[in-house]
Amino acid sequence: MLTPWETPESIDYKETMEKFGIKEFNFNEFNDFHLFRRKIIFGHRDFERILEAIKKNDNFAVVSGMMPSGKMHFGHKMVVDILKFYQEFTDKIYIPIADLEAYWARNISFEKAKEIALNEYIINYLALGLDPEKVKIYLQSKNEKVKDLSLRLAKRTNFNEMKAIYGFTGETNIGHVFAPIVQVSDILNPEFDENLEPSPLPVVVPVGIDQDPHIRLTRDIAKRVKITPPSSTYHRFMRGLLGGKMSSSKPETAIFLTDSPEVVKKKIFRAKTGGRETLEEHKKYGGIPEECVIYELFLYHLILDDKELKEIYESCKRGELTCGKCKKIAYNKVVEFLKELKERRDEVLDKALELI
Amino acid sequence: MLTPWETPESIDYKETMEKFGIKEFNFNEFNDFHLFRRKIIFGHRDFERILEAIKKNDNFAVVSGMMPSGKMHFGHKMVVDILKFYQEFTDKIYIPIADLEAYWARNISFEKAKEIALNEYIINYLALGLDPEKVKIYLQSKNEKVKDLSLRLAKRTNFNEMKAIYGFTGETNIGHVFAPIVQVSDILNPEFDENLEPSPLPVVVPVGIDQDPHIRLTRDIAKRVKITPPSSTYHRFMRGLLGGKMSSSKPETAIFLTDSPEVVKKKIFRAKTGGRETLEEHKKYGGIPEECVIYELFLYHLILDDKELKEIYESCKRGELTCGKCKKIAYNKVVEFLKELKERRDEVLDKALELI
Repeated sequence: MLTPWETPESIDYKETMEKFGIKEFNFNEFNDFHLFRRKIIFGHRDFERILEAIKKNDNFAVVSGMMPSGKMHFGHKMVVDILKFYQEFTDKIYIPIADLEAYWARNISFEKAKEIALNEYIINYLALGLDPEKVKIYLQSKNEKVKDLSLRLAKRTNFNEMKAIYGFTGETNIGHVFAPIVQVSDILNPEFDENLEPSPLPVVVPVGIDQDPHIRLTRDIAKRVKITPPSSTYHRFMRGLLGGKMSSSKPETAIFLTDSPEVVKKKIFRAKTGGRETLEEHKKYGGIPEECVIYELFLYHLILDDKELKEIYESCKRGELTCGKCKKIAYNKVVEFLKELKERRDEVLDKALELI
Repeated sequence: MLTPWETPESIDYKETMEKFGIKEFNFNEFNDFHLFRRKIIFGHRDFERILEAIKKNDNFAVVSGMMPSGKMHFGHKMVVDILKFYQEFTDKIYIPIADLEAYWARNISFEKAKEIALNEYIINYLALGLDPEKVKIYLQSKNEKVKDLSLRLAKRTNFNEMKAIYGFTGETNIGHVFAPIVQVSDILNPEFDENLEPSPLPVVVPVGIDQDPHIRLTRDIAKRVKITPPSSTYHRFMRGLLGGKMSSSKPETAIFLTDSPEVVKKKIFRAKTGGRETLEEHKKYGGIPEECVIYELFLYHLILDDKELKEIYESCKRGELTCGKCKKIAYNKVVEFLKELKERRDEVLDKALELI
């Protein structure tokens, strides 16, 4: 049976999952959370440990890094929603800002990275509802423990391994080669105490499936230093507004969290839908919500009530709901959401400045 | 003219010097210092900058690292003698302890490295006369500025360059590949302020000529980040007691600064000399001090008075001074020296503990 929240990409995901031993996410304990209920988080490794920690009210940590480049869009918001889910159960939400990687791989200065992290990401993270008491946001370049851990873990891998995973060449600068080790350290950091002695703690990393090679490296290195490999969950991605990949560097593909209503209007009205060629055909054959990025906006972000979403899905399928109407619904919801978010941003500004 | 302090190795050195643009050390300003006067320090790059700083009483820095493995011997003492020369003119004598490199390349734990650095090296450094107010001894692993600098400089080199200089392979652990960058940072560190902004200061690095590839990498990276490449001086090495290389890991090749008189006696009486096969031949043809490691002990360490040294040299050449007599002189001088050093070690212990 095709559920309203299954998309054709599922099939590709399944191949990757089988190949690398990622299990299907079939836990029903958290179905209140739409990203679980709708299988947007569809895979995991060792999530049982996290589930057990939550059930027993035990300590566990979540790690979710950010790259301080570009502007924050709805794709990023989904990760914040996941972190908000976890902060109900733990105050160990680690958010490393990858300013070292930005410096090595993208030539972004440390000053610039900090500015982007603060103004574009951290303020939005708090405005979206992350609790400043529960998140541990840090710049990689300023975290002595993470840097020291990465210097130690560097002993546990070699250039051949980095080359095989990341495609580095002999010309890649050594910093860039080192960047994944810092990221491994970000993830394993909660499993070490201040003296870099192992201090067991379940850790979960919510990532897209494209990040799995990195999770595998992290797990391999964890085993080499005899600590428990971190758990991970895998979410699918909303596509870009034009149907391809959503990208900060292509503004037409994403709605940014700071877009004005005028810009939102333009972007939504250009977005790729599942509508038919003509209005007549649409009414006759019905739309294809599975191919519609507007529908994805509802599914991931704008309509959390399943009944409401199902009505839209079926109304589209029956050809009753036209793309024009549907886009108007989406536009209104996005603009309302961004308006409230903007107000929240003003409220959290001082807190955000304190965090970094 | 063959001076009493020229050895056959000079010729090899000259080839290397020409190939890589190292200049002969022909400054006569510091001939009070026997290592200069006797051309044991025989080459340099850009020493003029240091000379000028000394003459103008300007600030400059000296960097001389130590690898915390094995025991300290007379070969190491020579480097301390050089640092003692410089501390008359500057209080910026940087002594990095390469505990990161020891960890990556030799699998020595940080605890062990610190213990060796303290007990074997730092105590002897102070006992030999380094002024604790003028030396800045630090563990690489604990120096945030040097670590941060190395993370930045890592952007300025790549695996191909490291491979070409150090012979690394794809199997070399990434820490080991990173180690030379930390060493580059040790050397360039005095040229940066606490915010890692360039802050011009002449720096000199006294090394053996085998370390020149590393100096060249350092100079290249300095140019890439637009700071002045450090100056360097090149010293020759005393040979091991058996005529080959002196090595901490081969106790029979070196007199350790903590050897007992009994051990010193054994080592000296087994040492390779420039004596002839038989006493008759020795008396007839004379000895060959240029081939004698006992003579090198005098030249480098035990006889600072040129006249006294020349008498020994000529007496040996004439066949009057036999190896037995000569070894006895050396033995007495070494034992006396080590006895005094031992007393000094007890005196400086507290100071040494404060430094690290």
